[in-house]
Amino acid sequence: MNYFIIIYIIGWILKAEAALLALPLLTAVIYREEAAWSFVITIIACLVIGVPITRKKPKNKVFYVKEGFVTVALSWIVLSCMGAVPFLISGSITNPVDALFETVSGFTTTGASILTEVESLPRSILFWRSFTHWIGGMGVLVFLLSLLPLTGGYHMNLMKAESPGPSVSRLVPKVQSTAKILYEIYFVMTIIEVILLLAGGMSMFDALTTSFGTAGTGGFGIKNDSIAGYSVYIQVVVTIFMILFGVNFNAYFLFIMKKPKKAICNEEVLCYFGVIAAATLLIGWNIRGYYTNILTAIQQAAFQVGSIITTTGFATADFNMWPELSRTILVVLMFIGACAGSTGGGMKVSRIIILFKTIRKEIHQFLHPRSVQKIMMDGKVIEKEVIRSVNIFMATYFLLFVGSMLLISLDNHDLITNFTAVAATFNNIGPGLELVGPTQNFSFFSNGVKSILIFDMLAGRLEIFPLLLLFMKDTWKKF
Amino acid sequence: MNYFIIIYIIGWILKAEAALLALPLLTAVIYREEAAWSFVITIIACLVIGVPITRKKPKNKVFYVKEGFVTVALSWIVLSCMGAVPFLISGSITNPVDALFETVSGFTTTGASILTEVESLPRSILFWRSFTHWIGGMGVLVFLLSLLPLTGGYHMNLMKAESPGPSVSRLVPKVQSTAKILYEIYFVMTIIEVILLLAGGMSMFDALTTSFGTAGTGGFGIKNDSIAGYSVYIQVVVTIFMILFGVNFNAYFLFIMKKPKKAICNEEVLCYFGVIAAATLLIGWNIRGYYTNILTAIQQAAFQVGSIITTTGFATADFNMWPELSRTILVVLMFIGACAGSTGGGMKVSRIIILFKTIRKEIHQFLHPRSVQKIMMDGKVIEKEVIRSVNIFMATYFLLFVGSMLLISLDNHDLITNFTAVAATFNNIGPGLELVGPTQNFSFFSNGVKSILIFDMLAGRLEIFPLLLLFMKDTWKKF
Repeated sequence: MNYFIIIYIIGWILKAEAALLALPLLTAVIYREEAAWSFVITIIACLVIGVPITRKKPKNKVFYVKEGFVTVALSWIVLSCMGAVPFLISGSITNPVDALFETVSGFTTTGASILTEVESLPRSILFWRSFTHWIGGMGVLVFLLSLLPLTGGYHMNLMKAESPGPSVSRLVPKVQSTAKILYEIYFVMTIIEVILLLAGGMSMFDALTTSFGTAGTGGFGIKNDSIAGYSVYIQVVVTIFMILFGVNFNAYFLFIMKKPKKAICNEEVLCYFGVIAAATLLIGWNIRGYYTNILTAIQQAAFQVGSIITTTGFATADFNMWPELSRTILVVLMFIGACAGSTGGGMKVSRIIILFKTIRKEIHQFLHPRSVQKIMMDGKVIEKEVIRSVNIFMATYFLLFVGSMLLISLDNHDLITNFTAVAATFNNIGPGLELVGPTQNFSFFSNGVKSILIFDMLAGRLEIFPLLLLFMKDTWKKF
Repeated sequence: MNYFIIIYIIGWILKAEAALLALPLLTAVIYREEAAWSFVITIIACLVIGVPITRKKPKNKVFYVKEGFVTVALSWIVLSCMGAVPFLISGSITNPVDALFETVSGFTTTGASILTEVESLPRSILFWRSFTHWIGGMGVLVFLLSLLPLTGGYHMNLMKAESPGPSVSRLVPKVQSTAKILYEIYFVMTIIEVILLLAGGMSMFDALTTSFGTAGTGGFGIKNDSIAGYSVYIQVVVTIFMILFGVNFNAYFLFIMKKPKKAICNEEVLCYFGVIAAATLLIGWNIRGYYTNILTAIQQAAFQVGSIITTTGFATADFNMWPELSRTILVVLMFIGACAGSTGGGMKVSRIIILFKTIRKEIHQFLHPRSVQKIMMDGKVIEKEVIRSVNIFMATYFLLFVGSMLLISLDNHDLITNFTAVAATFNNIGPGLELVGPTQNFSFFSNGVKSILIFDMLAGRLEIFPLLLLFMKDTWKKF
């Protein structure tokens, strides 16, 4: 293990966090809030640790998959620990476990909250809370990659560890340029949403925080009723952008490259939109009796479907009260998740597609034992290695899921609460059903259970293995 | 597709069913019950169809995996349809869907019932109901194989399709002899249980039906309170035999061959006993407050753990009322299931072990990218083909599970009822939680939902693919 380089990169992460904290500090200054001090102190703390350890460039450039995984896992943990400090210093959250839960929930774009009341919080704190979504959405190491003058094997191994989905595709040959392009698309789309929300009469503060929550597919709201209190226009804009941020960013890159046909004919993207349309129509029909007309029912269904499948977690309706079919569909969507290479969580649509294709191939093999069939996607053969890793991901996913369920059942809440609490955190969604339904929050859990859910959020965002590696003895061997 | 041979084997299945129906007929004669006629009529019906179509031996001996799968799937369907007739003719069950549900539940050794009251039924009907468990436990085609003078490639392909677990191991080189040995072990163990139950003061009728339910890991009781009304001695005997019937029968064969060390050091068997011990102790500790002393709590925990992990489904306590940790552990056990090559259902312990080993290998690969590691079990390398098929089985399992959940949620019952109803039928257990808890039954579901659960029970028992193949257009092509 090349410790030196890991510490060096974490130093940069801290310096980056100090820079990012300037924005909520600015907000505090604008609104003349006392919370400004909590940001100043955190910024100083980040710099005090970060600057000295980045002074000397590491000489040993060895950087394998192992180092990539460990760096990403530790970076996210350090980022979250420091990010929790302003909540504690400002007194917005008093329990340290709660503060860490809220911050991890932010960076991992989960959006599960332990706060029962958000409207009374300082605006700068609310800003920071939503801003963590935006930072975590595209990945903080991807951000560093696009800026840092690092050389060597770092790039690909860091990108591999942080990017969601079964395989990483470089948009352009250089990984650094790929990271830059991704962040540019992300930035521009966020700006467009802000403008459209402002056009709907939202204040600048609301538009910014809501856009951060949408872009990162996070879901922290700045109102106690999430998005329910806003106009239908705002709700529709948010619906559309949630769904857009759940699309594989490669598709947007292809659009920019003027290859719209290739962008649209992407199997994952088509399937993603197909699932959204089907789920919206089914739920809309199922809940038609709950609303004055079928159009409202469909609009509400579309919002909730978009919010859950992209793992954002905004809510405009208490879907916990909906009929069982709708609830079950939403639970299924929680697991499917968004496209690979988007800011959304869950298992990712492409993994589900690969699974279906593997099963179809298996049945074909039973019927025609002597035929040799390859699994194709978008006209390309999927490598055996990718199929294997998808299968192993799924298996690990379910085992961790079951383990978490068992541990949190010690709090003795009902099975649906436990099941959807794990589903909502592991898939980085936010709300679940029953006690963790969209009008509820996670504050009632014990500190032990909260710690497990913190682990689940990180495991979900980093797609399990980087985090698991931290617990292996072999990882920490010198060589 | 070689239709002729499939029909020929189904003819034999019907003749075998006619022979097996002689036993409940005998019971009816002994107890002078009118239900005797319903068995006479069913026997005649089986023979009228079965005898003519087995008169001519098929000339075309082509028999591939495809034919094996289709034969097994159709055999089980035909067997269940004819087996349901006595329930209908005797008037014990009036709704045909209910009768089919009860019979499929019997043959697949699920033990989920649509009857609200069983004690008032004719004894011969109760006998048939429990006897279906015994027939289905070891597999009806395995039974045929051990008797029929079939030649050619049939044996292995039928055995593959009907035997539970990731791979079929022949105990002796000849498949037919393997089938015979399995049935002999099965028969002897059942007799021993009957004797032990008789020694505990049970009547012959009770001892036989209870043993059938235990041996097949089925779970139909002849009392409304399942096994709760019997003495502790009886409960303990049933506990031990449930667990013994969930062991891989290969282990018993090795014992007979005087290789006890090899039998005991089987990874799957050791793991199976380990899980049972751990679950029993955890639940016993968790429910200690519900019973007068810790020993009773552990005895009750052991019964329920044995009943659920072996997918039997007998009950001595309403575990639906237990604390959440115990309920969650039981739900997890539902999915693990018994050993491969036993009469139990579920995913099978060996599949779970293989999954764990695959994950461990994956993590090892991250840490040591250049090392080549093979997955071993009992000192032998597991073939890639087996690992692949385990992964695909799991994936198909979960997708079918989710599909069933969505369809049965149309009945608008609560999520736990739906979830555990699918879990209990798909894993061939019987009782679930909430509305399908151990003191409840499945009668309240609509016919549509019951049909889906019938499919799930068959899919669970035959391990999915034989049944899925029936729905493929390619299966029915002439060549």
